[in-house]
Amino acid sequence: MEIPSQVSAFVQRALEEDIGHGDITTTCLIRENARSRAAYIAKSDFILAGIHFCNTVYELIDPGLRFIMLAKDGTHVRKNDILAKVSGSTRSILLGERASLNILQRLSGVATLTMNFVKKVRGTKAKIFDTRKTTPCMRFMEKYAVRVGGGNNHRFGLFDGILIKDNHIKAVGSTKKAIDAIRGRNHLSKIEVEVNTLKAFTEALKAGADIIMLDNMTAKEIEQAVNMSKGKVLLEASGGITLDNVRDIAKTGVDFISVGAVTHSAAAADISLKIQ
Amino acid sequence: MEIPSQVSAFVQRALEEDIGHGDITTTCLIRENARSRAAYIAKSDFILAGIHFCNTVYELIDPGLRFIMLAKDGTHVRKNDILAKVSGSTRSILLGERASLNILQRLSGVATLTMNFVKKVRGTKAKIFDTRKTTPCMRFMEKYAVRVGGGNNHRFGLFDGILIKDNHIKAVGSTKKAIDAIRGRNHLSKIEVEVNTLKAFTEALKAGADIIMLDNMTAKEIEQAVNMSKGKVLLEASGGITLDNVRDIAKTGVDFISVGAVTHSAAAADISLKIQ
Amino acid sequence: MEIPSQVSAFVQRALEEDIGHGDITTTCLIRENARSRAAYIAKSDFILAGIHFCNTVYELIDPGLRFIMLAKDGTHVRKNDILAKVSGSTRSILLGERASLNILQRLSGVATLTMNFVKKVRGTKAKIFDTRKTTPCMRFMEKYAVRVGGGNNHRFGLFDGILIKDNHIKAVGSTKKAIDAIRGRNHLSKIEVEVNTLKAFTEALKAGADIIMLDNMTAKEIEQAVNMSKGKVLLEASGGITLDNVRDIAKTGVDFISVGAVTHSAAAADISLKIQ
Amino acid sequence: MEIPSQVSAFVQRALEEDIGHGDITTTCLIRENARSRAAYIAKSDFILAGIHFCNTVYELIDPGLRFIMLAKDGTHVRKNDILAKVSGSTRSILLGERASLNILQRLSGVATLTMNFVKKVRGTKAKIFDTRKTTPCMRFMEKYAVRVGGGNNHRFGLFDGILIKDNHIKAVGSTKKAIDAIRGRNHLSKIEVEVNTLKAFTEALKAGADIIMLDNMTAKEIEQAVNMSKGKVLLEASGGITLDNVRDIAKTGVDFISVGAVTHSAAAADISLKIQ
Amino acid sequence: MEIPSQVSAFVQRALEEDIGHGDITTTCLIRENARSRAAYIAKSDFILAGIHFCNTVYELIDPGLRFIMLAKDGTHVRKNDILAKVSGSTRSILLGERASLNILQRLSGVATLTMNFVKKVRGTKAKIFDTRKTTPCMRFMEKYAVRVGGGNNHRFGLFDGILIKDNHIKAVGSTKKAIDAIRGRNHLSKIEVEVNTLKAFTEALKAGADIIMLDNMTAKEIEQAVNMSKGKVLLEASGGITLDNVRDIAKTGVDFISVGAVTHSAAAADISLKIQ
Amino acid sequence: MEIPSQVSAFVQRALEEDIGHGDITTTCLIRENARSRAAYIAKSDFILAGIHFCNTVYELIDPGLRFIMLAKDGTHVRKNDILAKVSGSTRSILLGERASLNILQRLSGVATLTMNFVKKVRGTKAKIFDTRKTTPCMRFMEKYAVRVGGGNNHRFGLFDGILIKDNHIKAVGSTKKAIDAIRGRNHLSKIEVEVNTLKAFTEALKAGADIIMLDNMTAKEIEQAVNMSKGKVLLEASGGITLDNVRDIAKTGVDFISVGAVTHSAAAADISLKIQ
Repeated sequence: MEIPSQVSAFVQRALEEDIGHGDITTTCLIRENARSRAAYIAKSDFILAGIHFCNTVYELIDPGLRFIMLAKDGTHVRKNDILAKVSGSTRSILLGERASLNILQRLSGVATLTMNFVKKVRGTKAKIFDTRKTTPCMRFMEKYAVRVGGGNNHRFGLFDGILIKDNHIKAVGSTKKAIDAIRGRNHLSKIEVEVNTLKAFTEALKAGADIIMLDNMTAKEIEQAVNMSKGKVLLEASGGITLDNVRDIAKTGVDFISVGAVTHSAAAADISLKIQ
Repeated sequence: MEIPSQVSAFVQRALEEDIGHGDITTTCLIRENARSRAAYIAKSDFILAGIHFCNTVYELIDPGLRFIMLAKDGTHVRKNDILAKVSGSTRSILLGERASLNILQRLSGVATLTMNFVKKVRGTKAKIFDTRKTTPCMRFMEKYAVRVGGGNNHRFGLFDGILIKDNHIKAVGSTKKAIDAIRGRNHLSKIEVEVNTLKAFTEALKAGADIIMLDNMTAKEIEQAVNMSKGKVLLEASGGITLDNVRDIAKTGVDFISVGAVTHSAAAADISLKIQ
Repeated sequence: MEIPSQVSAFVQRALEEDIGHGDITTTCLIRENARSRAAYIAKSDFILAGIHFCNTVYELIDPGLRFIMLAKDGTHVRKNDILAKVSGSTRSILLGERASLNILQRLSGVATLTMNFVKKVRGTKAKIFDTRKTTPCMRFMEKYAVRVGGGNNHRFGLFDGILIKDNHIKAVGSTKKAIDAIRGRNHLSKIEVEVNTLKAFTEALKAGADIIMLDNMTAKEIEQAVNMSKGKVLLEASGGITLDNVRDIAKTGVDFISVGAVTHSAAAADISLKIQ
Repeated sequence: MEIPSQVSAFVQRALEEDIGHGDITTTCLIRENARSRAAYIAKSDFILAGIHFCNTVYELIDPGLRFIMLAKDGTHVRKNDILAKVSGSTRSILLGERASLNILQRLSGVATLTMNFVKKVRGTKAKIFDTRKTTPCMRFMEKYAVRVGGGNNHRFGLFDGILIKDNHIKAVGSTKKAIDAIRGRNHLSKIEVEVNTLKAFTEALKAGADIIMLDNMTAKEIEQAVNMSKGKVLLEASGGITLDNVRDIAKTGVDFISVGAVTHSAAAADISLKIQ
Repeated sequence: MEIPSQVSAFVQRALEEDIGHGDITTTCLIRENARSRAAYIAKSDFILAGIHFCNTVYELIDPGLRFIMLAKDGTHVRKNDILAKVSGSTRSILLGERASLNILQRLSGVATLTMNFVKKVRGTKAKIFDTRKTTPCMRFMEKYAVRVGGGNNHRFGLFDGILIKDNHIKAVGSTKKAIDAIRGRNHLSKIEVEVNTLKAFTEALKAGADIIMLDNMTAKEIEQAVNMSKGKVLLEASGGITLDNVRDIAKTGVDFISVGAVTHSAAAADISLKIQ
Repeated sequence: MEIPSQVSAFVQRALEEDIGHGDITTTCLIRENARSRAAYIAKSDFILAGIHFCNTVYELIDPGLRFIMLAKDGTHVRKNDILAKVSGSTRSILLGERASLNILQRLSGVATLTMNFVKKVRGTKAKIFDTRKTTPCMRFMEKYAVRVGGGNNHRFGLFDGILIKDNHIKAVGSTKKAIDAIRGRNHLSKIEVEVNTLKAFTEALKAGADIIMLDNMTAKEIEQAVNMSKGKVLLEASGGITLDNVRDIAKTGVDFISVGAVTHSAAAADISLKIQ
């Protein structure tokens, strides 16, 4: 539920990057009044995310184009599925092809990898979260793709969530002092503290943290923390989470598992635009 | 060799995305005049790319920071290597941490994957090229990272290279007509034609293409094309290229191999910023 | 602790608005190399806020100017106090005069009114908060001025705090359903609910709200709510708060009192720039 | 009669400030296809100004919304009057609520205060003018609100009117020299000179000023100036004008009275949006 | 075939420059609901270019206006020909008058001068090209006008064509080394070399240039170069080309003649807007 | 005396237009640490205007460059005069060459043509003025060049001067009504009326115009108007003014002569940058 200008400003820049002063091939070869129909086709299996952004791409190029979505975000599409159709000026369709695919492929890749993590933890209490390790300038789109893939969003940036890290604690002297300092000035936010030892965890617990992030700790340590916390705080596991170890982490009873890879290392989904 | 404003406009947006109206944790906990030193440390082995962009991040946040690069782009860095140091206001360092890492990790990931492809084709004539399948709005940075990784850049966008595709040929009637139409209006560019059969290849060859892209063709077909062309045109293999099959393609004698994966599916390099 | 670009973008627009294609009087009358010293002087008593933004104004006009702050934000300045001095090109000083004063006068006005509310509630537990009723496009500056005046900031916008209002509750059916729906999708934020009757208050209390905003309720009703809550939730009084009634509200034992007037109806502080 | 892009650029920034990456409460609680009707309702008596800017707010959020104005700018509205209605997507209405109210409340506040000054001088020759003491970046809107309230606009900025002040005169040596210097280079504008003594007034009169601003002078002095000028120049009173003293100033026979307070110290009108 | 945002961003800036905070004459004199019809009329003979940009001007001012083109770009219009009609709000038409005329007059001037050069070389093999000597920020429009006038576009900027000049050659040591260095890193572009002596021409020919620019050479020298090249490279004459000497240059058999004057020294076509 | 951001925003766009994602020739051939000195050299005689804008070009590209002006704006430079020198990174100098020359050549062309008109009217009372017929988005630069060439500036845009034209008069009914309507709402501006017959002139004179523009009238008619006005109003001749007829117009005794050609049809001055 953002304002449309944010999406269109991003898409506009993506188009300018790709098109610059014009498509020099198409201008020579395709007549101005040529018309076509084209289809977005899945070339492999994946979770679709961002199909409506393709519509934004075309609206910015040519309001005369007609774009019809044939699959919804979140659908598990199969190879050869038709995802959407676009019809109208051939020139306009070709102008928007690459920019729309680059967005759609990346977001579907993020949603698909997120879903793979989500499936791994099914049956446990743990929820998959993203991080701030996103593609620069695409965070709002990638966090959306994480939700489409069944994941949850951690704080959007430095401005909308409190996360006390090592450096903050050192600067004030102790976890307790850090939490007190925040409570004295920010009354409306939950306070999360990052720890990487059980000792630090105990301090954070005593100091009254609302959420504790267990960073780069083993499944065994995490389990101990879960037992020690007795449900009084929310626990988040973070750092070095992979598809191989995520289920073991989830089984510890931790509440959240945050995974940088879902945004920083997702491979693009394979999609193509075919003019018919 | 771009103008500085392009880099700083991108970095500015990345910072605004992450910082918004301010870092609410750090503002409460770190005094305005606190000073620190911090180091960028490799957490795995990779090819470094984009370290000077971290400098841009800090210049935009606080001209009082001092940033020293300790490794050059293109270096094969090892786990635990220190890549750069930054010193000055603790608040400013923390503000730039995530944005600088997100850029550096992605570009180093692109350079590393590119280098892996480049190594695979060593000893052959083939050069590795990128495509337009880049992260929206980061193309100039990612194409730079491809060069750092030993790769070559294909056209930057629709505006700076002629590439005649299927749809263009259909629109005009034949490859010959398409090439002639371009030659009549654009005298300064080489003309590349995309083909996906040997029949189409032969037509493009006869029609006088300067470069022919062999799209999604088998190594065997590519080899035939190489033989048929007798060095009269440049040949580019494209589509479905992986680290597994790239050497076989390279051995056919093709001139260029273009790989979308180097930009759309590179995993981020693992790097962290440690305050000392 | 924002990034400098946000401040300078705002100041830039303010300068363009006032200066346009140039100061047609000064260009004719003041020589390019004329030099002056000028002083910002308080024309009445007030709490100073935003003096460093005047520096930003001059940096954008002419890096050759020298700006020296003589009073800090938060100081209770007296009529005729010198707040800052600026020296250098006379033309540049005149260009920045009005824009810098317009910012400084407004922010000092906000800080002063905030402080008046803060003083009224001294000795009680209540803290003064601002609202989203700020001057369009100046929110980050005005929220800063509120803090300078001893007040606290409520959420910055719709994006960084949960506030369930009447319309939200109607849409889902009950306060309980609304809180549960949020808890299912947002695990990191405190949940605030706005109520305007004791009945609604009781529902919110039972439903597990973290903070309850008592909107437009009488001091008596607020007192009842305080008693009923037994410290289990944070209570915020809001709506129709004035300098006349704020102390009565504060004495009820409520935790926060939010006041739209501190930003939407503060009179500007009286300040002038005198060239010496 | 501005170009639409100026209004929409301002409104866009106001929306981005308030909404950021999205309304996190509403996204969870209100379904995408929920529809509502809402009304803008006066909570006190005031002069309405800026109602059409609310339309701009909604157009930028969602072209599917329907906005109907029920009162015109300049109307003296009464408590409980319905000013406008908006219907369509509930989510979209909630997104635009605060930004539209913040604009409307401020502008109506400016118009109302202006009208109060205008009423005070009724029956005299004097006209009420605004100044450049406006909210940064809102000048075009606030000067509009002044006109709605029955006031007149002084120069918009440094670029569209000549006003010779003390510093200018000192720089050139005398009022005469200043006026001559301007006449030699600017043939199309009227020349206004600011004076704060009768002696300076006499000089300006002799030197051939078109308009003379009597700054911070007493009603008695102003009256003398009026008598001395014998209608040969336009006279403007300025500085320290309040609702208490404006009528006395007006009775002196001065042509214009400029009042900074109408833009820098107007209290916001009280307006709310009720969803029905 | 650019993206619409590029045109509208330029036109928007042109409108802001001319209109600023509003048309102060028209606002006073023309009622908001007044309607008119107006016609764009040629005041002399010229080649029309850019008529559709007038449409963009009006779309940005007021979507309610109706704009009808009566002549196409490229038409040789005669004095008193009606080029287009616009009808709707009188205020809106007057707002767009000057900005639209300034664009149309300049572009038609460019097209007309280009056509004069094109006519001069008719019957020869030579084609007329533009240069990068364009009006800052209007290059995409002016290069379009050159094409409308029958000319061809040279590279758009430094980014989309290789042109090795004197300084480049000096830096590397020889023309051969320069060409080899480029070939080693850029495989997709033709390489053009600028020479100003026959000696340098011979070197460039041997070194394998694709195109050679003969800069400021006499018709006689150019003829020699044509003979020496035997059709192996494309030859471009450049520097000091005027309507007086262009035919002599063209008769040498050179392929291209590039003329800075068509963009940097074209006189505006005479066009006016008449309200009926 | 503008704010620096206006100049740099324009120059930035000019650089982006020319450089895009980089200078592909120079990047290959010039080493990053190569250094050069270069000189701006006049290739013909002209009035220099805009030399300091070249400095802005280089500051935006590379703050390490050193730019030294050797001639001042307004100087009548001779062929082969050195106008400025720039030294530092060879790459940076080459990046700024074309953009700086394009600005300098155009502005010097405008100043030179203006000076030619000014010289023609020497010894008469008439002053040369510009119009709004300027290059879109370059008005502030071109109006500056007019002043450098000894000309005067007419209003900058629709926002800073009253000019009543035919259409305005028709809309209100008579010149008198138009002037009265303006006087009732704008007290600070002089009122100019455009007329194209002596009859209309007489009306405007009676109606109390401050300035009357005699549009497309013959020298004889203008002389009559001069006689009729008896110095009571300022008279401006406009329309169809050329170097051939301007002196005859000037001799009529008219105050101002406005000439569109000085900005819309000035040929560029011939200047080159030589690397030494």
